[in-house]
Amino acid sequence: MKAILVIADGLGGRPTDTGGRTCLEAARTPHLDALAAGGALGLVDPIGPGVRPGSDTAHLSLLGYDPFTLYTGRGVFECLGIGLDVQAGDVCFRANFATVEARDAGLVVIDRRAGRIESGQDELAAALNKIRLEEVPGVSFQFRASTQHRGALLLRGESLSRYVTENDPHGAGELALRFEPEPGHEDEAALRTAAALNEFAERSHAALRDHPVNRRRVENGEPPANFVLARGAADCPNIPSIKSVYGVRGAVIAGGALYRGVALACGMTTIDVPGATGGLDTDLDAKARAAIDALDEFDYVFVHVKGADNAGHDQDAAAKTAFIERIDSELVGPLVERLDWNATHLAFTGDHTTPVDYGDHTVEPVPVLYVGPSVARDETTSYGEREAGRGGLGRFSGRVLPILLGYSNWAPKFGS
Amino acid sequence: MKAILVIADGLGGRPTDTGGRTCLEAARTPHLDALAAGGALGLVDPIGPGVRPGSDTAHLSLLGYDPFTLYTGRGVFECLGIGLDVQAGDVCFRANFATVEARDAGLVVIDRRAGRIESGQDELAAALNKIRLEEVPGVSFQFRASTQHRGALLLRGESLSRYVTENDPHGAGELALRFEPEPGHEDEAALRTAAALNEFAERSHAALRDHPVNRRRVENGEPPANFVLARGAADCPNIPSIKSVYGVRGAVIAGGALYRGVALACGMTTIDVPGATGGLDTDLDAKARAAIDALDEFDYVFVHVKGADNAGHDQDAAAKTAFIERIDSELVGPLVERLDWNATHLAFTGDHTTPVDYGDHTVEPVPVLYVGPSVARDETTSYGEREAGRGGLGRFSGRVLPILLGYSNWAPKFGS
Repeated sequence: MKAILVIADGLGGRPTDTGGRTCLEAARTPHLDALAAGGALGLVDPIGPGVRPGSDTAHLSLLGYDPFTLYTGRGVFECLGIGLDVQAGDVCFRANFATVEARDAGLVVIDRRAGRIESGQDELAAALNKIRLEEVPGVSFQFRASTQHRGALLLRGESLSRYVTENDPHGAGELALRFEPEPGHEDEAALRTAAALNEFAERSHAALRDHPVNRRRVENGEPPANFVLARGAADCPNIPSIKSVYGVRGAVIAGGALYRGVALACGMTTIDVPGATGGLDTDLDAKARAAIDALDEFDYVFVHVKGADNAGHDQDAAAKTAFIERIDSELVGPLVERLDWNATHLAFTGDHTTPVDYGDHTVEPVPVLYVGPSVARDETTSYGEREAGRGGLGRFSGRVLPILLGYSNWAPKFGS
Repeated sequence: MKAILVIADGLGGRPTDTGGRTCLEAARTPHLDALAAGGALGLVDPIGPGVRPGSDTAHLSLLGYDPFTLYTGRGVFECLGIGLDVQAGDVCFRANFATVEARDAGLVVIDRRAGRIESGQDELAAALNKIRLEEVPGVSFQFRASTQHRGALLLRGESLSRYVTENDPHGAGELALRFEPEPGHEDEAALRTAAALNEFAERSHAALRDHPVNRRRVENGEPPANFVLARGAADCPNIPSIKSVYGVRGAVIAGGALYRGVALACGMTTIDVPGATGGLDTDLDAKARAAIDALDEFDYVFVHVKGADNAGHDQDAAAKTAFIERIDSELVGPLVERLDWNATHLAFTGDHTTPVDYGDHTVEPVPVLYVGPSVARDETTSYGEREAGRGGLGRFSGRVLPILLGYSNWAPKFGS
């Protein structure tokens, strides 16, 4: 038995998306429709009814974990997803290169994304990783760059705290903030963590401002990547692995570091797919091939596809509809064609709605499809929000992966 | 964007109500049916599946709070709803005037409602509010009368406990009980609170028995309101306001003190509507006008309507059906006609079922309707229990207000 979970990020929409229909309803999705006709639909509240999900909390919940008790922040998933070795006690951040100017009042953020820098990030990261703190000894940093200005930052040392604020002012022309203990958490660990971060921020500017990469950028009229903004402080959540609970081995295929990071935190193995960008240009066909291949080695595969969410945030209904059609033809089509449907279960859902008229996540539940030998076919014949509302699986909260593993007879019994 | 939540108390019923149909199904509700046709239905378990709701716990849950962790008792909502200024540490009661007779064994309750006294209650309350305790110094009382025999009682002082029993024997001809610490809570605070309440009860009889209001009642052959029964001990629950969570300002329109009290505890503003009685005779048209006016000033309005529950408790199917028809024509009709449906979301539900053949709350879920620009229309065309069972929103628990605020794009994101 094999299982495959596909989460299409930001899949859900509203009737306002395309004049009465959601993008998903408007999209031509013959393969998903065929799976719906052969399987069953329902509605899933990614976290719970009326809870507006973030991507990180939604994924934790869909994979079977309670984000209200386990979630500590986004940074740890970014660090894991980017390949840093996170250990208990580390404090993790989502980080990015920025452009600052030194003025009398302090460092003013000119560009929060350093002109979306496209090259030289690894050399800049190498310079950052040489920084040694003097005022707060015993604390070390690891920075790793990912795409463009994006990266992740990890602190390691005795007695650190995740209860610290960020240094990102979230607006150009504003002073970079100082890290501080969060209100109500002004203990020694938080004070020490904030002091280490403030020293790191100062030294990062010193290490980057005259770096050859930045000299070239200035010569070319580009904003220098001369500062690091860090946010989303988190420590390592105590997540029992899916392997330890269900006894099966899983792999994740995802372009975005965050999603790889959540899956890694749950004990999955990452499969790198060249061309999986986490954007609208991602190579879905390559992801489908990689997923099918991975099922030779793993019991289940989790495939994350980001593009529909990007289009939703961009408030571009045509792009969202077109990307959903690409998911259907380039990802679902090959799965339908090449998997053994006598011995495979598939779940297909989204992690939240991202209606194009709003351009951000909203609270509505998303459709979920299950198909495979254990799934009793319902009366639905197409894949969409409203069809899912009359599906045979009703409405439930999170836990899409545990249900999928359950159909595959891998769920542990609670009680006897 | 504006939002309006209507909760029709005790709305739900059973097929035994009217020979195969519930009162709601039997009632002629053209406006609700039209809203159902333009919106979507579902079933909501006010607290959770198989949980038989009280009115207070159901409202907390529908407004988005977990009653299992937050609910401390009914008294605090009665005190808030009646206009008392509840502070942290206060212990609050639902209270009422009663008629007692002094006998050798103690005070015997002759009429638990003092003949449903209709006048003079404020003068009696003034007499109660002059009571000063001598045996338990440092504890003060506030009593406020509402309709008929009903009122609320608040204790204030150092180190009080809500873990005390009541003095209401719940039967005529029985001795008024003494307040005691609840079993398992026999600490100093509970002993002191019970002692203060017992002294207050004694002094209340002394203050009331020869009061001019009661002399007149006895002359007129009416039972004197010469004692106070108190129950539902509660302290101030730690409820974050809806404003602090969602950033929007709301108002409540409700005849019953309990419902105003729950809404006040959640941070809403009370709007007084002359003629809103909390009974079958309430002025629904005035409530509709007040709600529409309130939406000029507030982001959302919560309208509570009590009558259907009263008729359910009275086991009067005709009265329940007729009142539901009045809700449709006098409350929903004006809302349909006068609100801007391009920029308004409405939720319409009940807080529990009150079947007329049983005459009290039961566990069944109740229908919930959402309509507005963000809501995807489903296939339902009328408003009722069974139609809601085939609605596009499925079945979920509580949280009707958070979902409504989410459709209006006011929900905070959990995670990132």
